[in-house]
Amino acid sequence: MYLHDKRLQFPVRVEKPDPVFARALQQAIGGVEGEIRVCLQYFFQAWGQRGPSKYRDLLLQTATEEIGHIEMLATAVALNLEGAPLSEQEDVAADPVNGSVLNGMDMRHVLSAGLAALPTDANGVPFDTSHVYASGNSAADMFSNITAEATGRVLAVRLYNMTNDPGMKEMLSFLIARDSMHQNQWMAALEDMGGVAAAMPIPNSFPQGKEQEEFSYKFVTTNADGSPPEPGRWNEGPSIDGKGQFTPEQIRPDGQEPKLAPPPPNSGAQKEQMDFLGRGVAAVKDMLS
Amino acid sequence: MYLHDKRLQFPVRVEKPDPVFARALQQAIGGVEGEIRVCLQYFFQAWGQRGPSKYRDLLLQTATEEIGHIEMLATAVALNLEGAPLSEQEDVAADPVNGSVLNGMDMRHVLSAGLAALPTDANGVPFDTSHVYASGNSAADMFSNITAEATGRVLAVRLYNMTNDPGMKEMLSFLIARDSMHQNQWMAALEDMGGVAAAMPIPNSFPQGKEQEEFSYKFVTTNADGSPPEPGRWNEGPSIDGKGQFTPEQIRPDGQEPKLAPPPPNSGAQKEQMDFLGRGVAAVKDMLS
Amino acid sequence: MYLHDKRLQFPVRVEKPDPVFARALQQAIGGVEGEIRVCLQYFFQAWGQRGPSKYRDLLLQTATEEIGHIEMLATAVALNLEGAPLSEQEDVAADPVNGSVLNGMDMRHVLSAGLAALPTDANGVPFDTSHVYASGNSAADMFSNITAEATGRVLAVRLYNMTNDPGMKEMLSFLIARDSMHQNQWMAALEDMGGVAAAMPIPNSFPQGKEQEEFSYKFVTTNADGSPPEPGRWNEGPSIDGKGQFTPEQIRPDGQEPKLAPPPPNSGAQKEQMDFLGRGVAAVKDMLS
Amino acid sequence: MYLHDKRLQFPVRVEKPDPVFARALQQAIGGVEGEIRVCLQYFFQAWGQRGPSKYRDLLLQTATEEIGHIEMLATAVALNLEGAPLSEQEDVAADPVNGSVLNGMDMRHVLSAGLAALPTDANGVPFDTSHVYASGNSAADMFSNITAEATGRVLAVRLYNMTNDPGMKEMLSFLIARDSMHQNQWMAALEDMGGVAAAMPIPNSFPQGKEQEEFSYKFVTTNADGSPPEPGRWNEGPSIDGKGQFTPEQIRPDGQEPKLAPPPPNSGAQKEQMDFLGRGVAAVKDMLS
Amino acid sequence: MYLHDKRLQFPVRVEKPDPVFARALQQAIGGVEGEIRVCLQYFFQAWGQRGPSKYRDLLLQTATEEIGHIEMLATAVALNLEGAPLSEQEDVAADPVNGSVLNGMDMRHVLSAGLAALPTDANGVPFDTSHVYASGNSAADMFSNITAEATGRVLAVRLYNMTNDPGMKEMLSFLIARDSMHQNQWMAALEDMGGVAAAMPIPNSFPQGKEQEEFSYKFVTTNADGSPPEPGRWNEGPSIDGKGQFTPEQIRPDGQEPKLAPPPPNSGAQKEQMDFLGRGVAAVKDMLS
Amino acid sequence: MYLHDKRLQFPVRVEKPDPVFARALQQAIGGVEGEIRVCLQYFFQAWGQRGPSKYRDLLLQTATEEIGHIEMLATAVALNLEGAPLSEQEDVAADPVNGSVLNGMDMRHVLSAGLAALPTDANGVPFDTSHVYASGNSAADMFSNITAEATGRVLAVRLYNMTNDPGMKEMLSFLIARDSMHQNQWMAALEDMGGVAAAMPIPNSFPQGKEQEEFSYKFVTTNADGSPPEPGRWNEGPSIDGKGQFTPEQIRPDGQEPKLAPPPPNSGAQKEQMDFLGRGVAAVKDMLS
Repeated sequence: MYLHDKRLQFPVRVEKPDPVFARALQQAIGGVEGEIRVCLQYFFQAWGQRGPSKYRDLLLQTATEEIGHIEMLATAVALNLEGAPLSEQEDVAADPVNGSVLNGMDMRHVLSAGLAALPTDANGVPFDTSHVYASGNSAADMFSNITAEATGRVLAVRLYNMTNDPGMKEMLSFLIARDSMHQNQWMAALEDMGGVAAAMPIPNSFPQGKEQEEFSYKFVTTNADGSPPEPGRWNEGPSIDGKGQFTPEQIRPDGQEPKLAPPPPNSGAQKEQMDFLGRGVAAVKDMLS
Repeated sequence: MYLHDKRLQFPVRVEKPDPVFARALQQAIGGVEGEIRVCLQYFFQAWGQRGPSKYRDLLLQTATEEIGHIEMLATAVALNLEGAPLSEQEDVAADPVNGSVLNGMDMRHVLSAGLAALPTDANGVPFDTSHVYASGNSAADMFSNITAEATGRVLAVRLYNMTNDPGMKEMLSFLIARDSMHQNQWMAALEDMGGVAAAMPIPNSFPQGKEQEEFSYKFVTTNADGSPPEPGRWNEGPSIDGKGQFTPEQIRPDGQEPKLAPPPPNSGAQKEQMDFLGRGVAAVKDMLS
Repeated sequence: MYLHDKRLQFPVRVEKPDPVFARALQQAIGGVEGEIRVCLQYFFQAWGQRGPSKYRDLLLQTATEEIGHIEMLATAVALNLEGAPLSEQEDVAADPVNGSVLNGMDMRHVLSAGLAALPTDANGVPFDTSHVYASGNSAADMFSNITAEATGRVLAVRLYNMTNDPGMKEMLSFLIARDSMHQNQWMAALEDMGGVAAAMPIPNSFPQGKEQEEFSYKFVTTNADGSPPEPGRWNEGPSIDGKGQFTPEQIRPDGQEPKLAPPPPNSGAQKEQMDFLGRGVAAVKDMLS
Repeated sequence: MYLHDKRLQFPVRVEKPDPVFARALQQAIGGVEGEIRVCLQYFFQAWGQRGPSKYRDLLLQTATEEIGHIEMLATAVALNLEGAPLSEQEDVAADPVNGSVLNGMDMRHVLSAGLAALPTDANGVPFDTSHVYASGNSAADMFSNITAEATGRVLAVRLYNMTNDPGMKEMLSFLIARDSMHQNQWMAALEDMGGVAAAMPIPNSFPQGKEQEEFSYKFVTTNADGSPPEPGRWNEGPSIDGKGQFTPEQIRPDGQEPKLAPPPPNSGAQKEQMDFLGRGVAAVKDMLS
Repeated sequence: MYLHDKRLQFPVRVEKPDPVFARALQQAIGGVEGEIRVCLQYFFQAWGQRGPSKYRDLLLQTATEEIGHIEMLATAVALNLEGAPLSEQEDVAADPVNGSVLNGMDMRHVLSAGLAALPTDANGVPFDTSHVYASGNSAADMFSNITAEATGRVLAVRLYNMTNDPGMKEMLSFLIARDSMHQNQWMAALEDMGGVAAAMPIPNSFPQGKEQEEFSYKFVTTNADGSPPEPGRWNEGPSIDGKGQFTPEQIRPDGQEPKLAPPPPNSGAQKEQMDFLGRGVAAVKDMLS
Repeated sequence: MYLHDKRLQFPVRVEKPDPVFARALQQAIGGVEGEIRVCLQYFFQAWGQRGPSKYRDLLLQTATEEIGHIEMLATAVALNLEGAPLSEQEDVAADPVNGSVLNGMDMRHVLSAGLAALPTDANGVPFDTSHVYASGNSAADMFSNITAEATGRVLAVRLYNMTNDPGMKEMLSFLIARDSMHQNQWMAALEDMGGVAAAMPIPNSFPQGKEQEEFSYKFVTTNADGSPPEPGRWNEGPSIDGKGQFTPEQIRPDGQEPKLAPPPPNSGAQKEQMDFLGRGVAAVKDMLS
């Protein structure tokens, strides 16, 4: 169950509204690296948590915080849109140096939202919830969460570097700090579960004796000329999980050339496909009757 | 540039075709945890790689291997569909014990593909390439790759546990082994870059002095009653990156209650929205003229 | 800024877990009539609100409540999945009367989520945020909100009628009651803005003198035989907004037959398209040089 | 069954082609507020109509009219694209005042369509038919239709205000007038069904005695400090449907803290998740054998 | 501009309603091979037609006919849903032989549509208009139209073979006949434009002298062992367009190994990526200041 | 199984990086006319091929070649992005003639990819695999492949005409040449199967005696005034498949006006819908009890 406070978690102010930067900020709202994604991802992981209650607690706290980050960014977009041109005539005047503002802004900020944020990315593509990863495996989920916060912080840094507005830089420096924490906290959860090596290979509940162990620590190369891979930690030395030894090996076809059965009558194929295995005339005529 | 061998990387055989399991296998082809995703993800990371050539080499090798995994799974789906019912009449006969096969299979395996695999997930949802993460930051990408292989192996294990077909179990035990390796190799690449602690917070090229450091290692809680979080590694002790100390802190509203300007005339709002700040009658009439 | 309470807004209990009903419940989470949609819709309307602060207040209260409804439904799905079959062998045994459970459940509940809710609809299609309507016009938004609660309550009623589980019926009877309130409250907001007639035509800030008033209250019929429409309130009597009189009129072509210019050279068209207006040989040759 | 007339319902002319405005117009074709949506929505409501034939008649007339509105807008886009730059060289010359035309236009108008309309929105996002609402409940559908026409008219007004072209203003003033009518006619259909109060709560065929009536007219507040809501019509006085009394009430957790069962063996979870309830070593070993 | 007749183009009757077949029929409405697609595709090709008016005429006639085919199929779905179970209790009784009807039907037919057709495919995936191909090149469009009618007729044949209902077989035999005509008519349009050979390579307005003609008729093989392709019409003899000779040739790397510049400072990459070309310590420190 | 060579199939060089052209190139990567589509389409057709092995061989060769074309284009995008502005300040300086670069480029090239290609189209819309056509009918698939290469070559020609960069023109002239070949080779495969006439109507395995032959070669017109169609090859003379004679005929309603049953109780409709057939008070009361 949830509650709210009308005030923002951190101040959001815009010194000079900039509709083009408003479009860039959309990536942090509705992009795959954005805040709607992490918010819903942590909620679904929490709500589906099967395991110690402390992970549910952890996830709920941060999911709830993230709602407020969407709110901050949506506010920032709206403030950046104040004064945006509503007509092509206004537009010409709006930015004589950089060229037409309408060219660079998200027109739907005017057409669909009346100068407010949209739940879409910087190209106007709506967020879709297939990006909400909640696998039922806590270690996999933690790696997914670190990824989300890593790409999220990369994005926030790029936005920080793009803008010159002191208010926007301040807001972004807060979000960047929170992403620092969130990366650390999900990594801490992995440590809490026993650490990376013990967690791997994920899921660690599947007995490795059942996998084709010959292939479990081979670095497979696909160089057409059979040359070895460039040397790297991933093709020599002990594996990270401590359960094997990395060795390079050229890919080879252990399997067969696949042969599928011909299409059955009534399957909507062409006659020429059906006849090819010497089924003969009678069979084909039969199909046609 | 790419080449092929007609044979499969590992044998694919099906003892007893099972159209319902064919549908389950689709998740490993076109699901977000599936092989199309990893294949394209590693390719786009390789093709856009800005940094030491060894990472490009690493990524290309595994991307190329993954094409062959989609091929194996597509073959497995096609083989599981042989003998699938093409008419409702066949269907009733097909499975008097387990109920209608058509009910449980993906009808598009008949209707759209003529008994072959589709590039969709187990519910028939097409794969979309927004799931191809290639951020331009190598550490973020490695975490994303571990996630992909972790959820991929979780999925393969669930498929292994679902089927009774010895051929399918054998194929899946190979794919599970490859996922073990791939999880390890991406983790090894992180180690090669200096290790997890050095990589964090990602991107490590952004000077932390520019972030709001007060918030960088605070575990923010959102309990409405102000109670502390359940104890965990993430709210006490040194941070994972070694650059701070975890401490819990109750969320607080440092920001303002947001106030947006009223909608401008000609923005398509209702009169009642525009009038509210005492603009007065003249202004509103002006809008309407 | 947001806070949470670990407890649910209303009790969720399942007497007899039912994986097929779990799939049906997904529609109320990630369907277009579902709770993620209303939650995000009210938030984006609140965060972009330009107008009296009371509307922002109203929207924030209900948006925040709705997070808790997603939570209740996600909990209900997870509880309905306990005991769901993980293998085809279990499945046959699981339900000898109603047929295979795997046939009717969402396989991704096992394969992708490990027995938890997904942010998708009853067919496994992810929610996408293009359904979050926040137009910047408060009256349009209120109609959109009533629609969302009307289709939401219709859905909840259908789910109520589908299940026999007393716990599920109780939970749904709560959500149905909340939808009753929410329909009423958005309608009340319209009344607060002056009522339906005054609001229309939305946006009421556009001077109707600028529209082609001849067509503003005509009920246009398209019967190929020119017959009149079936009588109804919409083709006779005063208009609802009190600003016109409904009258039926057969559609007629006031416009021209459209003529587009031929494709320019270098536009990638076929020669036959470019040549057709007697441009002649020279022009076409010119294109080819 | 359908027929056509080659001529347009209303004249479409463009005095000065403008590829950037062509992009804006796309929102009215393939946007969620656009004409493809209403056209298909009214058709699916008509074709699935279960109830008095007059509603089917009403819906078919307007659905058929709407095809012609897509046609008008597609023509308008094509005419605005005549003269659009096909090369970057042309582009520089094309608009020395406003900056590069290619920057602001939809490049796919050249690349994918050869100077014609696309079935996408102003950002190039394709329309998807999940926006076609046809719920089987006529009152819900009417509210959805009013919403569609309200957002549609808001959009048309914004486009009208954006352009300076007299031909485009004339065409839009026609579409705005038709939206005035359509808003009114769907409201009239609601009146015909007995009016808003009688229709609510939708569906009115569900006996309210079965809902948790205690919550049916409560305005639930979520202020973390327990403060009351801003006063509004929605938290005091009789409800709009006349069946209750609005009263504000602070949200409270009537439900439990959810407890999900631990993940079963073979479900692909981590060992650490499975072990947590004191299952003990034997059980976990058993999983691994 | 468009008109309608209330009656269907061809009779639609269902002798024994079948909710599972209703789901299969959805593929012909909202699938990529379905009727919404061809309807919108022919309309957008017509509305954007730049070239002789006869092609616009041709396209408009068939586009308009296709609306009526969606209507027929939507009617067929609705009739197949009459009597479908609304509760799990009814469902068990509904089909004791074939297993649960709910398992095999599209639950959204009940939950979202109240027993009517949806604009989705057989798996409930909404149609999206990226499948509306209208390229501005008439020959390319005709090939696209033949493809649509070919896959459309394949689908209709599979549906015909799936059902036992005489009414449904009759309706489908009509749609199959129309697809026969439509395949032929689009091929006839190609003949009208000069025939296949003259049309190719599409677009035929691009001077082939500007392409790398060395590669224009080479059948490139990618066999890793350098073996020749299986013999076929495509690797020997004159090309279909009569402008070259097919010859097989093993793929070879004419290009370079790509080298991208290192990531610039401020681009959000890891330090390790930036440093690799011997930029040295000073440069990296500079980034961090 | 697949292998790779680090070098490109053909040289890719960029003389003057151009971030706006990088955006245009995206259409050839992730657009519906692009290379990801053909690559996956040929692979899925090959992997699901039921029929003579030579078609599988043909498809695998070209599918494998196409991976290398995505690679070339991804490289071209990355090279065009070198020097792209990372901040608004740089941007102003970057292109004083054509206006702001940020306005015209894909901002996600900076924000999401760090100056590399994305698997999206020119508007940033991700590719989705519903565009991978593999129908199980070889003739339908060949028409689909010709379509893909025709629209692909149209796109490549438009890109060639758009750019002034010699390196880009050279790369595109290679891809254009390959599209010439690929159009020809798929047409050759059709010839190999017996030719177009013999293939039609697709699928040619369905006995035409089962279709409503009266309608198989009628050109149906929908002119509201009953006027004849413009003359064309498609409404006179023998059909292309040689099995009929084209004749025009005005559309006529052979079917009924559809009548659907009223909504059942418990289906979530309004009372007014249920009551309309004289069910009477008792029935309606019964619904409400």
